[in-house]
Amino acid sequence: MKFKASAKYQIPRGTDDLMPGEVEIWQWAEAKAREICRLYDYKEIRTPIFEYTELFQRGVGEATDIVEKEMYSFQDRGKRDVSLRPEGTAGVVRSFVEKKIFAEPQPTKWYYMGPMFRYENPQAGRRRQFHQFGVEVFGSSDPALDAEVISLGIHFFESLGLKGVRAEINSVGDPEVRAVYREKLIEYFEPYKAELSTEAQGRLYKNPLRILDSKDPKTKEIAQGAPSILDHLNEPSRKHFEQLKQYLDMLGVEYVINDRLVRGLDYYTHTAFEFMVDIPGAQASTIGGGGRYNGLVEEFGGPEMPGVGFGIGLERVMLAIGEQKVDVPVKTGLDCYLVTLGDEAKLYGAKLLNEMRHAGLTADRDYLDRKLKAQFKAADRLQARFVAILGDEELKQGQINVKQLATGEQETVKLEELIPYLKERS
Amino acid sequence: MKFKASAKYQIPRGTDDLMPGEVEIWQWAEAKAREICRLYDYKEIRTPIFEYTELFQRGVGEATDIVEKEMYSFQDRGKRDVSLRPEGTAGVVRSFVEKKIFAEPQPTKWYYMGPMFRYENPQAGRRRQFHQFGVEVFGSSDPALDAEVISLGIHFFESLGLKGVRAEINSVGDPEVRAVYREKLIEYFEPYKAELSTEAQGRLYKNPLRILDSKDPKTKEIAQGAPSILDHLNEPSRKHFEQLKQYLDMLGVEYVINDRLVRGLDYYTHTAFEFMVDIPGAQASTIGGGGRYNGLVEEFGGPEMPGVGFGIGLERVMLAIGEQKVDVPVKTGLDCYLVTLGDEAKLYGAKLLNEMRHAGLTADRDYLDRKLKAQFKAADRLQARFVAILGDEELKQGQINVKQLATGEQETVKLEELIPYLKERS
Repeated sequence: MKFKASAKYQIPRGTDDLMPGEVEIWQWAEAKAREICRLYDYKEIRTPIFEYTELFQRGVGEATDIVEKEMYSFQDRGKRDVSLRPEGTAGVVRSFVEKKIFAEPQPTKWYYMGPMFRYENPQAGRRRQFHQFGVEVFGSSDPALDAEVISLGIHFFESLGLKGVRAEINSVGDPEVRAVYREKLIEYFEPYKAELSTEAQGRLYKNPLRILDSKDPKTKEIAQGAPSILDHLNEPSRKHFEQLKQYLDMLGVEYVINDRLVRGLDYYTHTAFEFMVDIPGAQASTIGGGGRYNGLVEEFGGPEMPGVGFGIGLERVMLAIGEQKVDVPVKTGLDCYLVTLGDEAKLYGAKLLNEMRHAGLTADRDYLDRKLKAQFKAADRLQARFVAILGDEELKQGQINVKQLATGEQETVKLEELIPYLKERS
Repeated sequence: MKFKASAKYQIPRGTDDLMPGEVEIWQWAEAKAREICRLYDYKEIRTPIFEYTELFQRGVGEATDIVEKEMYSFQDRGKRDVSLRPEGTAGVVRSFVEKKIFAEPQPTKWYYMGPMFRYENPQAGRRRQFHQFGVEVFGSSDPALDAEVISLGIHFFESLGLKGVRAEINSVGDPEVRAVYREKLIEYFEPYKAELSTEAQGRLYKNPLRILDSKDPKTKEIAQGAPSILDHLNEPSRKHFEQLKQYLDMLGVEYVINDRLVRGLDYYTHTAFEFMVDIPGAQASTIGGGGRYNGLVEEFGGPEMPGVGFGIGLERVMLAIGEQKVDVPVKTGLDCYLVTLGDEAKLYGAKLLNEMRHAGLTADRDYLDRKLKAQFKAADRLQARFVAILGDEELKQGQINVKQLATGEQETVKLEELIPYLKERS
């Protein structure tokens, strides 16, 4: 081909085309997520791709990196501030409140799946358009439900054939616990103040819990000696955490307690968790996370109502599937490729092809008027199990030749018997 | 409940939450689309939700309403002009060219499905975030392929149980035909110039074909007398159209010729079509459309390569499903609701519930520490087929009571036999 590609139009940086070959793995994983949610009777909800910006300012937090630096925010043609959703929870809670679902019998068990958007520095597993599968359950404070949500996530990973998946869990207590713990942390970090990262210094009096998940090496080292929130739980928090562990044991969920696992936002209560997965040759990697947020529905103008949920990054799931070399059962190839010779056969072939497809067979034919040999080559390339060959002469006799490509075996069958013949053998 | 909803946070105007109850119909229709595409061996491609704005200016046309008035365009944080996709074809063709798929064996058969965005005046079936299912095939000029694409669309509608679906078809010829026809149209419309709508007057010398699909009543009336493009086809165009009709006949596709059906853009060639569906009590309504675009790949910087495709509006499909009262086979309800009484049974119940779900049963339980009667009420509300009742006493004896809600029949089975018992009966 003489043509030289100019790549005149390019895909936006940090976004991807999911192409055939790869997209089937996504389809399969998404179908698994739906299947698992069906078993747990979690229903899907789909909220819009964009929301009014104020929703995320409230739901995600005005002073967070996401809202300050990473959101795709703009004015629509009606001069309203809108943003592409950077995460899935805010829209779902907005819908729960706006549609007054809180007034119906509880709990409400929902899942969502779809694209999210953050203007970050793109790298593998961190894309500007990325995709999440998440669940949100409203209306119950039962720690058994926290355990159900965690085990649903683990069930999903296992259904994909991923190995070495486990949960890291922690309690972030309730507001009373955190008020006390906050003081303890400030007390602990103050003597090290000068050694902390600039970011951590800025957080010292505002939100010292966030210092615990700092990525700065020196800050991390200092944080290792910090008091544990688990030593400061009050009775309700301690009980919730104990029961969570009992239920996880009962469910056979593998978990590790990680008292450095925190959530920065005020409405998180009790349970916080992350899903971890082994990736050969890499460190254990976070593939999702969630927790309980007993104040969020109220935050959005609803009544006081507890919630618990998680978000799983599907790009990371795909990385893990690739790295662990999971054998994905993707159905490809054709049941039958139709080869025709001659004008009459070509026209009649359309009818035959149509009948095959309506009978549930995956079938295709040539659309480039190729010669016999090239049509067979196309059949090979499309991984056809059978090739049906129709010439004008066979058509006159009401017959067609069928060849099984794997064995080379060839038979002549009546035209009206082609479909039963193929169906028996596919 | 004392709480009074403030509806503080609202969904953006013209967008929707797809809620449980409705979303299952979407899931079902989407699965049908995938199933049909699998039969035709069309592969899915997923392009980003937004693209650089210049792509749509080129692909959709700078002077179109879509690009001028309806696109969600903004600058990202890197000062690049981006737009939410207003349709599906531009991104797909961009990918076809950028990934050099044109250099692989042809034809390339793709489908896409997902949200699109236009800032329009919202009404039923016309939303600011709407959803399309579309196919694009590249690399063959064979009219048999136009027929395949049309029949794939019809097959999709029929698989949903929609009645009265048909195609309206036309030929828009090739550039040579249109150059001649353009003059004929100008000649015809010129004497009526003053009576035409302002919009039509503006199009008279720029793009008179677009006058044919004017919605202005007077212009429409005048346009009825305009010459037909079908009387001006040259030999290649006439042949293409004749063969298309032959193939549609062969495929048993119901079609009507509508010589007023045009596409405004220059790269459309030969076939143009729309899918129409009967909606009781309403006029026949367009539910999708497409055509052949032999110049589009080149337009995006690729080689000369033909294409044909369609886009179907899923909101309109849903309207038709609703209006035609299609009996949608949505699986709802639980196989089993687990009722427990007592602390031991509650904890052990988690294990039992988990086993049911892992065995492929849809199962749930109470998470509000409700009394027996309220738990049964929840089982009813969740349409459980069976209720399994476990008390501390039964647990000690390794037994559980199972009640079939439809018949009231109740049996006591061993704990380890619960799952086989339910599976036999579900």
